[in-house]
Amino acid sequence: MKTLSEQACFGCIQGFYAHDSAETGSEMRFAVYLPPAATSASVPVLYYLAGLTCTEETATIKAGAQRVAAEHGLMLVMPDTSPRGVGLPGEEDDWDFGTGAGFYLDAVMEPWADCYRMYSYIRDELRLLINEKFPADPDRTGIFGHSMGGHGALTIALKNPELYKSVSAFAPISSPMQCPWGQKAFTGYLGTDQASWAEYDATALVKNGKRAPHILIDQGTADQFLCEQLKPEIFEAACKEAGQPLTLRRQDGYDHSYYFIQTFMEDHIRHHAAHLTGT
Amino acid sequence: MKTLSEQACFGCIQGFYAHDSAETGSEMRFAVYLPPAATSASVPVLYYLAGLTCTEETATIKAGAQRVAAEHGLMLVMPDTSPRGVGLPGEEDDWDFGTGAGFYLDAVMEPWADCYRMYSYIRDELRLLINEKFPADPDRTGIFGHSMGGHGALTIALKNPELYKSVSAFAPISSPMQCPWGQKAFTGYLGTDQASWAEYDATALVKNGKRAPHILIDQGTADQFLCEQLKPEIFEAACKEAGQPLTLRRQDGYDHSYYFIQTFMEDHIRHHAAHLTGT
Repeated sequence: MKTLSEQACFGCIQGFYAHDSAETGSEMRFAVYLPPAATSASVPVLYYLAGLTCTEETATIKAGAQRVAAEHGLMLVMPDTSPRGVGLPGEEDDWDFGTGAGFYLDAVMEPWADCYRMYSYIRDELRLLINEKFPADPDRTGIFGHSMGGHGALTIALKNPELYKSVSAFAPISSPMQCPWGQKAFTGYLGTDQASWAEYDATALVKNGKRAPHILIDQGTADQFLCEQLKPEIFEAACKEAGQPLTLRRQDGYDHSYYFIQTFMEDHIRHHAAHLTGT
Repeated sequence: MKTLSEQACFGCIQGFYAHDSAETGSEMRFAVYLPPAATSASVPVLYYLAGLTCTEETATIKAGAQRVAAEHGLMLVMPDTSPRGVGLPGEEDDWDFGTGAGFYLDAVMEPWADCYRMYSYIRDELRLLINEKFPADPDRTGIFGHSMGGHGALTIALKNPELYKSVSAFAPISSPMQCPWGQKAFTGYLGTDQASWAEYDATALVKNGKRAPHILIDQGTADQFLCEQLKPEIFEAACKEAGQPLTLRRQDGYDHSYYFIQTFMEDHIRHHAAHLTGT
């Protein structure tokens, strides 16, 4: 792991780092915010998964999360959204597939299967690296994200409740199997066998008995992707029928941007702090 | 004036607008954050002047100011840092002169004199436009900024205490006459007559009897431009000798970035709110 930059921010350090990832076969970058509490003790770790086209910088710059993380003593980890520059044909052709669009799954289709392994990267490789290199308390890990990353957080939490003790999402895709973004990505990464799709679909996971801690979701009512791509009512209905605890808040007039995210960031970090630290 | 975008943010609206400016002979863009209080009453207005290379988007995205402005009922206005695309020879050649580097002065040298009039643009044209088009209380106006823009805020406030009732700065240039950035810009925009330079130099203005409301300045001790360009001790000494009220805080370990600015943004907006609203 190498340090790209470290800058003072809200009493401690905002850093950017890179490492050679075995899962993705490429150099991966990520951002870590260390709260002041991390100078004297291990602290809970909160992963933020960004959406389509984003990088490790997006939420680090735009989300306003560091202030609240400092207050609650949480470490923030913000990874990139895909491998970059691995040289696969077509990886740069689309904004919603390939680079910047890893969908937090392990691809099985060629040529993506060797590098597009963002599920294992986030859950295993990066988590273990963070626990080794930073003052992280491995027993207090939470996860959240936005859009594609909101969905990634939901699926990773639902599939691994022993690892993730808190989960929330901003405007997540509710069911990739039932929206154009997801159908395109799943066909490309997973092939046409829809049985394998269900393993990476938050709504299908809930229907199939997977359970996560109480989920908080904020969704803007003026989100330009609401009806065609996000469809929160699908996930809401699945949670209700299955008994999965969910607080879904429809926020009047908000869109899909980081102006929406920063408005409700404090509520989300408080949600995670309540689960991870009891405060 | 035309609306480029309006998005919900912290209970009200973050907007981007454009208008044809008579002062700069070009279309100018600016950002306005309206706090919830502006839906029912006129509110104080706080101008933020950005630094070299920045635009109206920079602090809007990176500074984390909207949350605190919403809390205190302040409107935020974030202008661009220069005319753009006016077609002057060499305007795009340097990052610290021409485009993105208007220095908040009225140029007298050709070819800059017709368009590079950011002092009159900020003080007169934009202020009157804001007062006409938005629910602004013209008697409660404050100004702050960063680096080149921090210096711009200091000079505009010192020269116009009847218009600006509060002022602060993040890592401002203290005396353009005494640093490379300023000497280059002043020579290009104002010529070699140093008597005219003193009209746009915050330290010279204080020495020559100009006064502003109590000034708050934050300056990071790890700022990469501290010793060569910013030189806070020059302005500090001038204020002390002249009796200009100043709180200069040296923040240990912080650099020149928006990670520094966002850390102390709340303190600055509270400073302005105390002067503008008495809260």
